[in-house]
Amino acid sequence: MFVAMNRISCQPDYVERFEELFRNRARQVDTLPGFIQAKILRPLKDDQPYIVMTMWEAKEHFDAWLKTEAFREGHRRGFEDMRRAREEGRTPPMSSTMEEYEVFAE
Amino acid sequence: MFVAMNRISCQPDYVERFEELFRNRARQVDTLPGFIQAKILRPLKDDQPYIVMTMWEAKEHFDAWLKTEAFREGHRRGFEDMRRAREEGRTPPMSSTMEEYEVFAE
Repeated sequence: MFVAMNRISCQPDYVERFEELFRNRARQVDTLPGFIQAKILRPLKDDQPYIVMTMWEAKEHFDAWLKTEAFREGHRRGFEDMRRAREEGRTPPMSSTMEEYEVFAE
Repeated sequence: MFVAMNRISCQPDYVERFEELFRNRARQVDTLPGFIQAKILRPLKDDQPYIVMTMWEAKEHFDAWLKTEAFREGHRRGFEDMRRAREEGRTPPMSSTMEEYEVFAE
């Protein structure tokens, strides 16, 4: 099993919007080949990021998702928020680091 | 749902032993109240840690686990490796950072 974790730090004034984007997500990804589950994690300590975690049968399924219309549509609103901030010279509302793992024991 | 992630960086010469400890784990934790699942994650990129992830119905269940004999027994071999390195003045074989999350969307 392959696990992708996108560790996302939000600006304080973006947190509410960020959570709203995920509570209303389109769930198109859930229907893709190899998809197992997604969990969106809110940190319980202040100095830690949000984590968008998706689990897949194999890395190939995750890589294929990144090239789909479902991926672009699922990230459209967040990408627009980033673009607008950039155009207006504001601090980006979020920054992210992608981590990739394989499950070797359960 | 509550998710605990212990991010563990291993010394290169400890990686094999580290994985062995988890492949042979006692699985006592799996029987505890509120336990949902555990996944032990191997990083696919060099600069990232291993992650020991446990999921629980609530944080209270996780906190209760830390006080059990099952926890002590499950970590006995790793703790001994750490103690031995300390006594012998060697670099600790691993270092860890605990992160705690709640699932706010799936």
